[in-house]
Amino acid sequence: MVDMVHTARRSVRTRGQGDAHDLTPVVTEVIAEARVKNGLAAVSVVGSTAGITTIEYEPGAVWDLNNALEQLAPRDAEYRHHLRWGDDNGSSHVRAALVGPSLALPIVGGELAIGTWQQITLVEFDTRPRQREVVVQVMGDA
Amino acid sequence: MVDMVHTARRSVRTRGQGDAHDLTPVVTEVIAEARVKNGLAAVSVVGSTAGITTIEYEPGAVWDLNNALEQLAPRDAEYRHHLRWGDDNGSSHVRAALVGPSLALPIVGGELAIGTWQQITLVEFDTRPRQREVVVQVMGDA
Amino acid sequence: MVDMVHTARRSVRTRGQGDAHDLTPVVTEVIAEARVKNGLAAVSVVGSTAGITTIEYEPGAVWDLNNALEQLAPRDAEYRHHLRWGDDNGSSHVRAALVGPSLALPIVGGELAIGTWQQITLVEFDTRPRQREVVVQVMGDA
Repeated sequence: MVDMVHTARRSVRTRGQGDAHDLTPVVTEVIAEARVKNGLAAVSVVGSTAGITTIEYEPGAVWDLNNALEQLAPRDAEYRHHLRWGDDNGSSHVRAALVGPSLALPIVGGELAIGTWQQITLVEFDTRPRQREVVVQVMGDA
Repeated sequence: MVDMVHTARRSVRTRGQGDAHDLTPVVTEVIAEARVKNGLAAVSVVGSTAGITTIEYEPGAVWDLNNALEQLAPRDAEYRHHLRWGDDNGSSHVRAALVGPSLALPIVGGELAIGTWQQITLVEFDTRPRQREVVVQVMGDA
Repeated sequence: MVDMVHTARRSVRTRGQGDAHDLTPVVTEVIAEARVKNGLAAVSVVGSTAGITTIEYEPGAVWDLNNALEQLAPRDAEYRHHLRWGDDNGSSHVRAALVGPSLALPIVGGELAIGTWQQITLVEFDTRPRQREVVVQVMGDA
């Protein structure tokens, strides 16, 4: 086995349910440091009440996504998860499980192969502000 | 190319739609065997009517997820897929396509970088019990 | 670092919202060219209004998936994203963010470890025909 995986961890302070953060600059930075030409950039968030996806990172589209998730898993509905711990974040768990905690995207010619209007985005689903840990891993050919 | 991918296959017996299984112990075991320090653990299920995600693995949260999916793709609704094969699992296909069949998660310092209350979970979406094949792959630096 | 990542790009012409394309033959072809025995096949689409998932690739199941997404993010609803650019594709962004732009699937013994009735599928969510760029990356052991 060879040394080929570059790992970076970042802490992100979120402001509660629906708050989104553009992770693309961090991922781009890790790719540059790793000097990987062709390979994968894997991005994930630690925890079961946040998600990683791509979206056009502008407030309208982010609001629309959160609005659709509010229809699907309303914040103020009743959840069995609440009965277990007295938590109020059943909607957060459902949303996070649907969106997913991680993404693997291609690096081609030293650049992330995503669109101009497509950003790697962390979405907080928890009902309170959280300190989130994001892990970025880059692997591939120099 | 070097020998660096460790593959394990596991068979999981499910009890039909909504049944969930915590795969975290299996993935942890494969990481330990592979002695990978930094890299990726990729987990997938074979077939188009089951999904892999992360969730807090407790019956309430799993029930809440299944309940949201029942709103989105009710088991007893009419599906065009039923017309094709006489199947009754249109809801299973829709749910599985939304949740997704696989996940790639980071290994950092020899450990899976997920939260304490976050488990890698197989969810059966088919309407009948199935024998599921799960593939775990670990790759990275020793 | 060693040469081990095989990258292929393909252009796919879509016909607008809901149009689906089976990418499995392309992925299989790249795996064969790369002569990878065990590893990962990562498939992604460039842009924030299309998605990659697996589904049984037959018109009924694809229709059912699109129908569920139409309930969740109706094409003709109002979206804040529309206010920003005068676009009409708010539903496309929401659907794409939920389904996700990429997938990493296992290669075992030189073959994609997916089911017989499970195909890697590009789904167009934009409201107009698009020329889509798909990136397939194969990495692993020969």
